[in-house]
Amino acid sequence: MELVQAQIKDMGERALAAKRELITLDGKKRKEVLYAISDAIEKNAEYIKRENEKDLANGRKNDMTSALLDRLTLTDERICGMAKGMRDVAEQDEVVGKVLEEFTRPNGLKLQKVSVPIGVIGIIFEARPNVTADSAALCLKSSNACILRGGKEAIFSNTAIAKIMREAICSCGVNPDCVQLVENTSRDSANALMRANGYVDVLIPRGGSGLIRAVCENATVPVIETGAGTCHVYVDKAADIDMAASIIKNAKTSRPSVCNACECMLIHADIAEKALPRIYEALSEKNVEIRGDERVCAILPEAVAAKDEDWGCEYLNYTIAAKVVDSIDSAIDHITKYGTKHSECIVTEDAAAAEYFMQVTDASSVYHNASTRFTDGGEFGFGAEIGISTQKLHARGPLGLRELTSYKYRIYGKGQVR
Amino acid sequence: MELVQAQIKDMGERALAAKRELITLDGKKRKEVLYAISDAIEKNAEYIKRENEKDLANGRKNDMTSALLDRLTLTDERICGMAKGMRDVAEQDEVVGKVLEEFTRPNGLKLQKVSVPIGVIGIIFEARPNVTADSAALCLKSSNACILRGGKEAIFSNTAIAKIMREAICSCGVNPDCVQLVENTSRDSANALMRANGYVDVLIPRGGSGLIRAVCENATVPVIETGAGTCHVYVDKAADIDMAASIIKNAKTSRPSVCNACECMLIHADIAEKALPRIYEALSEKNVEIRGDERVCAILPEAVAAKDEDWGCEYLNYTIAAKVVDSIDSAIDHITKYGTKHSECIVTEDAAAAEYFMQVTDASSVYHNASTRFTDGGEFGFGAEIGISTQKLHARGPLGLRELTSYKYRIYGKGQVR
Repeated sequence: MELVQAQIKDMGERALAAKRELITLDGKKRKEVLYAISDAIEKNAEYIKRENEKDLANGRKNDMTSALLDRLTLTDERICGMAKGMRDVAEQDEVVGKVLEEFTRPNGLKLQKVSVPIGVIGIIFEARPNVTADSAALCLKSSNACILRGGKEAIFSNTAIAKIMREAICSCGVNPDCVQLVENTSRDSANALMRANGYVDVLIPRGGSGLIRAVCENATVPVIETGAGTCHVYVDKAADIDMAASIIKNAKTSRPSVCNACECMLIHADIAEKALPRIYEALSEKNVEIRGDERVCAILPEAVAAKDEDWGCEYLNYTIAAKVVDSIDSAIDHITKYGTKHSECIVTEDAAAAEYFMQVTDASSVYHNASTRFTDGGEFGFGAEIGISTQKLHARGPLGLRELTSYKYRIYGKGQVR
Repeated sequence: MELVQAQIKDMGERALAAKRELITLDGKKRKEVLYAISDAIEKNAEYIKRENEKDLANGRKNDMTSALLDRLTLTDERICGMAKGMRDVAEQDEVVGKVLEEFTRPNGLKLQKVSVPIGVIGIIFEARPNVTADSAALCLKSSNACILRGGKEAIFSNTAIAKIMREAICSCGVNPDCVQLVENTSRDSANALMRANGYVDVLIPRGGSGLIRAVCENATVPVIETGAGTCHVYVDKAADIDMAASIIKNAKTSRPSVCNACECMLIHADIAEKALPRIYEALSEKNVEIRGDERVCAILPEAVAAKDEDWGCEYLNYTIAAKVVDSIDSAIDHITKYGTKHSECIVTEDAAAAEYFMQVTDASSVYHNASTRFTDGGEFGFGAEIGISTQKLHARGPLGLRELTSYKYRIYGKGQVR
């Protein structure tokens, strides 16, 4: 543990030096760096695939599931995708150095609130090697230094990608320590990074709920919690039933493995007998299993009886929980108890009911008559994102470039004292 | 511990219910509540003083220092101050429900980014009983429920103030659980509050650096770090020496016990021989002890030789550290190593040097030719504040009403799916 701590401390010192250089780099130079990296990634595709093959071989040896192996695999197409993603980020608007507010006090002090990089961002992630390049691109564009700590399953791929990125940064005459990869993938290295106060300004975990819980539990560095999504669609008594069926089908089945997928539907009792068969019809096209409470099962013989653990469950597959509720407040109660403050939807033609639901439901994104699947940086128009924040501090919802900034006050005086 | 956990959980459940009521209360009603509380505080001044006397008697019995006894004491004037502070907060502009941004996506989805309360705020503080009323006022005005946990030294005073506040809230027909006080002042109750995920959205410690460190170390709930301030004034080679002396004297001596006071001055070598005697002259009017490095002591025989622990020390009294530096970068190096990212100042007539210093120095507030003492909610024009944030997430600098809000996205559709 001590050795790992010393390694992380050393990386922290380097990151602080790089952060200081980064803050004075202009946007043109950072763009040049991002293009240099994306070119280098494309040029070294064969090398990346060779290293990736080592991770895949280890994965097969360790009986990794085919879903995980798929996430781990880097094809030519995916490598091009990483490079293209980096160029897209390079072309986005600048987010640092913006004067957000400006005002003069009665004593003549002039205050500017200016957007600044967060500083050093630590990112702890799991088996997807493309996160290495995506995270570095977002951090560099927003003038942040980053320390990346990926999972051991992808260590050969991550090391190769990091090496290529650092060489490309160097070739532009910039300090390569603005992107560092922790090559030690022990639990100790993650713990040391979580407690690297004074070096790491903010930690962002990217991965499943187990990882996120471990980071929130152990970190002393401030954390932006991302990810876990148990999203609900509430079908109000004044809903358009066809629209409800279409939204639920989309929110559940268009990509069940992601955090903005719908995991539970709540149906108002007044409309349940008409709505449930229609929703079932839509979901059965994709063979979705419905786990219903007693009232759902009474209406829908095809539903399976839900158990306690079905409420609040993040299935991430073709299963959905379903419950009949007697009022909009019962729906909100259920969401308050079981939701993860990610994305929640009401389907209704009653505008007042929609307003009430959207005001009272506590979530990063609240929808009226649209699929929860839209909670996404690209869909919101923010470009690439580093995750979906489900906490209240700093930023909620998609974390794009702008959410990777902080601010400072610049105060201009003429000798004022108090 | 289990009993305390159950108590905190029960308070958390009540806070969740109150939070839901609060979100639908309009600004007029919240203002009415704040006025009712401030009237009740004034009307019950005798009762508050009586309960406060019990705390003071315990303090004297336990040999509390006179400085702490002074902080603990509630006089008629201070009680009026609490009530007036509450009315001032009541009169501030509304901060929740503001449409911060609004845009329509190509698919027709209309997005609104709207300011919302954080939800339930936990506040852990030490011996100053007025924090009970001040914190409750800021939370109520911003539609947040709060759970207050003060120190055992002030428990009689805090209990009395909380009781008066809750009765006044009740008399307006509002759920009194929007303000709750943890009456158990054991370490266990603080720990349970720090780990009350699911109930408490954000924790704000208000107190000395020991308290803040303990909260950052133990909390699993997101924390806004406040407080510790080791602020520097850097006197550049192009400084106006009289201005430098005036700023340093003010920043050090106008109120040495606060976090925006200056604890260390850094003097450029080119100007040190002229500047130091002039600064010494200004500081000696207030009997300030200067702890200097070798080069300071060589110029200023009155200086005491600084030890290692003087660098980065938050004296909070009439002592200041002093060091001669060879360049603006050396000054920034020193600040990077020993500062607390609170407030940092450069005194110079060279605008380019000032810009460089203000860009590179990582602090919530960076000053050109003005005293660090201005980092304050009132001085910035934000009104009352709940502390000065020294971290990068969420908010930096003075935490006023606006910084006690988060936001959500409201998305309006017509059945859009993805």
